[in-house]
Amino acid sequence: MTLKEKGARWYITNGVYVITTRLDEKINGMAAAWVTRVCEDPVLISVAIWEKNYTHNLLKQSGIFVVNILREDQTKVAIHFGKQSGRDINKFTGISFREGKTGAPILDDCLGYLECEVVFSRKLGDHTIFVGKVLEEGNKKGGRALIYKHSDYF
Amino acid sequence: MTLKEKGARWYITNGVYVITTRLDEKINGMAAAWVTRVCEDPVLISVAIWEKNYTHNLLKQSGIFVVNILREDQTKVAIHFGKQSGRDINKFTGISFREGKTGAPILDDCLGYLECEVVFSRKLGDHTIFVGKVLEEGNKKGGRALIYKHSDYF
Repeated sequence: MTLKEKGARWYITNGVYVITTRLDEKINGMAAAWVTRVCEDPVLISVAIWEKNYTHNLLKQSGIFVVNILREDQTKVAIHFGKQSGRDINKFTGISFREGKTGAPILDDCLGYLECEVVFSRKLGDHTIFVGKVLEEGNKKGGRALIYKHSDYF
Repeated sequence: MTLKEKGARWYITNGVYVITTRLDEKINGMAAAWVTRVCEDPVLISVAIWEKNYTHNLLKQSGIFVVNILREDQTKVAIHFGKQSGRDINKFTGISFREGKTGAPILDDCLGYLECEVVFSRKLGDHTIFVGKVLEEGNKKGGRALIYKHSDYF
């Protein structure tokens, strides 16, 4: 099935992100694409997460998350965080990171990050949108953002 | 100021869209970038709109909108719909369109469109996110999506 046959919604453009969180001593991260800015003043970011993802309930309880923005050469990182569940493995084994001010992991190797606290959330269908106020943002070494392409993952 | 100096939020990737609506006999459209899918089942799309845009109140009252997805060669269309206000002019003069099932305009020349009815909205800072359920979607002649680049418009 070509992109054109799949419907116009597949032409909506998104980047690729690793959304990380921490609940007590548990850290986890998942790949996500449905991320966008939603407000300039204050700076707010929304992230839509499927309710069956392990990260969903961790984030819902902790109220904190980091948007780690992947570079165009990091499709493998997206697959690492997107194709396995934190219920089964510790995804951070072998991944270099530091803890942000909230304790959530910030990947050492990415384009940039936004550390957020949830100011609003709402269940919509089988997803929840979490809207976060940016507590801190930072850039890494530069480069271009990875753009989501369905065929990279399915 | 380089992209890197401007902060990580500028690395979040968005496409470029013309959001149209109709309230009674008044039609209008505006350029927007902060658009994303937020749910697969049902198919839901969120659009963040600055509260001072003319389209904001029209859409809030009508509860309907169309996401017209721009092609990579349509920066001028984004400028047309983004740099003038429907308070002052009729933006559709000289623009070819048809009315969707809700009566909102669908641009004849674009990559694809999603006609939506608002199922949820929420004011967040100086923007409102409108979440729409897709009533109908369609593709045009193919091509690639226009990706938002700040320097194209400022």
